[in-house]
Amino acid sequence: MTIRYPNGHAYRAPAKKIGSQFSSTNTNYGKRGMTLEEELNESNTYYEVNGVAVVHKKPTPIRIVKVDYPKRSAAVIKEAYFSTASTTDYNGVYRGHYLDFDAKETRNTTSFPLQNFHQHQIDHMRACTTQGGICFAIIKFVTRQEIYLYRAQDLFTFWDAQQQGGRKSIPYATIAQDGIQIPAELQLPVPYLKAVDQLLS
Amino acid sequence: MTIRYPNGHAYRAPAKKIGSQFSSTNTNYGKRGMTLEEELNESNTYYEVNGVAVVHKKPTPIRIVKVDYPKRSAAVIKEAYFSTASTTDYNGVYRGHYLDFDAKETRNTTSFPLQNFHQHQIDHMRACTTQGGICFAIIKFVTRQEIYLYRAQDLFTFWDAQQQGGRKSIPYATIAQDGIQIPAELQLPVPYLKAVDQLLS
Repeated sequence: MTIRYPNGHAYRAPAKKIGSQFSSTNTNYGKRGMTLEEELNESNTYYEVNGVAVVHKKPTPIRIVKVDYPKRSAAVIKEAYFSTASTTDYNGVYRGHYLDFDAKETRNTTSFPLQNFHQHQIDHMRACTTQGGICFAIIKFVTRQEIYLYRAQDLFTFWDAQQQGGRKSIPYATIAQDGIQIPAELQLPVPYLKAVDQLLS
Repeated sequence: MTIRYPNGHAYRAPAKKIGSQFSSTNTNYGKRGMTLEEELNESNTYYEVNGVAVVHKKPTPIRIVKVDYPKRSAAVIKEAYFSTASTTDYNGVYRGHYLDFDAKETRNTTSFPLQNFHQHQIDHMRACTTQGGICFAIIKFVTRQEIYLYRAQDLFTFWDAQQQGGRKSIPYATIAQDGIQIPAELQLPVPYLKAVDQLLS
């Protein structure tokens, strides 16, 4: 079965399906056209297998309306809807630090639209920051094939300005300057923990 | 709609539905018969609202098989199954520390059966412990109405012994002695962060 994501890519299960929610029997055509989520899942698997960090994507929250309980077999969900998470998608632990982040893709080349974030995600990152967590966004400019770690604090500044009538996006130039670029590595599509090391140092 | 959990309690939405996955229109009959999950959700909401900690239950992982995309309305999941999580159910950040735990109820009075845990949950807690996370189990003896925080390290000891042919449960007396009891407080059904403070001190 192929599930099409909003960006038009066909879903493909990562090499190791830890944390993957959908099953897929698609052929692996290499790393061409991987979504950011797939790249992060692969990276997180690599980090966990190598004892570097434990970071997982949370399951997609589902609002269940109807469940059948057939005799002698597993419960079948017959009606359910995708619902909105009250948190970010990724969290975990690295070098004793709590990490919390969201990953966003844009096909824009000149700016990152703030509408990619929801108020409750911003609120969640603020609350985690207050507790001493390390919070950030991983932003991929798909057309440019560039990925950046962007500090939550910088994101909050643009978010708050927007609510005061400020601009509805963050300029690419700003993210390229203030963010930390994450170039892909062999076996590691998004080696974001190097950028986290920079944040921590 | 009423969803019956394995312990036989009818599901009732917590006072504030943060992180709740199912909708419910049941009347609130007070705290009588709350499941441990409901008690923890209430406690976590209390902690978050009061700026004490940010801890959430992860959504139940669902394996989606069939989705309908009706025109002009939301996608409907038509066939899906409950799947097993690769992590524990709860994690978050408190005083700069990464917390990771699972919550288990038993109606046994003399021991806690280890079959309540799965190998991958133990593996996950071990990996998080290695990264400097604070890992534990919250165990409720339902009949006794007693709740304990039990250190992951102590759990590992019993788990490993079981795999060498040792006993398949942890005696109640051991948990009562080595664990940290969590008596309920006003507005806070499971004030487990007090026990975490003891762990940290």
